[in-house]
Amino acid sequence: MKRLLVASIAVLAALAALPAAAQFQKPEDAVKYRKAAFQVMSAHFGRIGAMVGGKAPFDAAAAASNAEVVAYMSKLPYAGFVEGTSGTEKGAPNAKVWSERAKFDEDAKKMQDEVAKLSLVAKTGNPDQLKTAFGAAAGACKNCHDNFRNP
Amino acid sequence: MKRLLVASIAVLAALAALPAAAQFQKPEDAVKYRKAAFQVMSAHFGRIGAMVGGKAPFDAAAAASNAEVVAYMSKLPYAGFVEGTSGTEKGAPNAKVWSERAKFDEDAKKMQDEVAKLSLVAKTGNPDQLKTAFGAAAGACKNCHDNFRNP
Repeated sequence: MKRLLVASIAVLAALAALPAAAQFQKPEDAVKYRKAAFQVMSAHFGRIGAMVGGKAPFDAAAAASNAEVVAYMSKLPYAGFVEGTSGTEKGAPNAKVWSERAKFDEDAKKMQDEVAKLSLVAKTGNPDQLKTAFGAAAGACKNCHDNFRNP
Repeated sequence: MKRLLVASIAVLAALAALPAAAQFQKPEDAVKYRKAAFQVMSAHFGRIGAMVGGKAPFDAAAAASNAEVVAYMSKLPYAGFVEGTSGTEKGAPNAKVWSERAKFDEDAKKMQDEVAKLSLVAKTGNPDQLKTAFGAAAGACKNCHDNFRNP
């Protein structure tokens, strides 16, 4: 009975993992998707960066709204990292994304956690705390880029 | 006093309108942004389309999750329709987006309303209702494309 249960769990786990790859008809679709999701995230993140870097006036409502979009978008791109979509060109993910997947997933989770914090902090309207949280989130982005993205 | 109030409202309205254009440093950034947002929306919308079209098995949880992303993404691209970014190539927005802006905004709002409904319907887990709501949403997409996108 216990063996049957273990086997059933394995089947369920395999089924749960299936959609991630099956979501895209072609590997190129997965690449386009993850690039697009990062692009949208980056546009909103950059607006907060402009504020904390003094290139745009601080606007608490805009910071909160942009941080909310960043936190939402941070969950999307990873479905697009399907097998066989590493690259050698500048900005493409290197093969370590797949050979060191646990580390990649950990780096992704760290970024997602930091931008979730950024979104919470942005809602308080405190520019100093925003700057600190933005720095931590930017550091998490950079850390994963340094490890897994071609320079 | 009333004149002062009217003038103040005009200034506030101008300020409220400012960020939409100022969000992007260059027109190309706005174009990239709106394309990316539509790309992400389209990927998730397409997965529901595959289900209602019988090309993928009906999966209530996946339908609800994809519809939720579509509804969220539907609000993002329009900030990227800044002045001076119409085009003549296939798929680019035509000049009517700006010369008939009220109609464009109305078409956009119609799509946003339909995908919001789709997201609500998807949560109920009824495949027939999902199909109807998907059709209405797809119709709203097509309507705006027919009016404002180069064939």
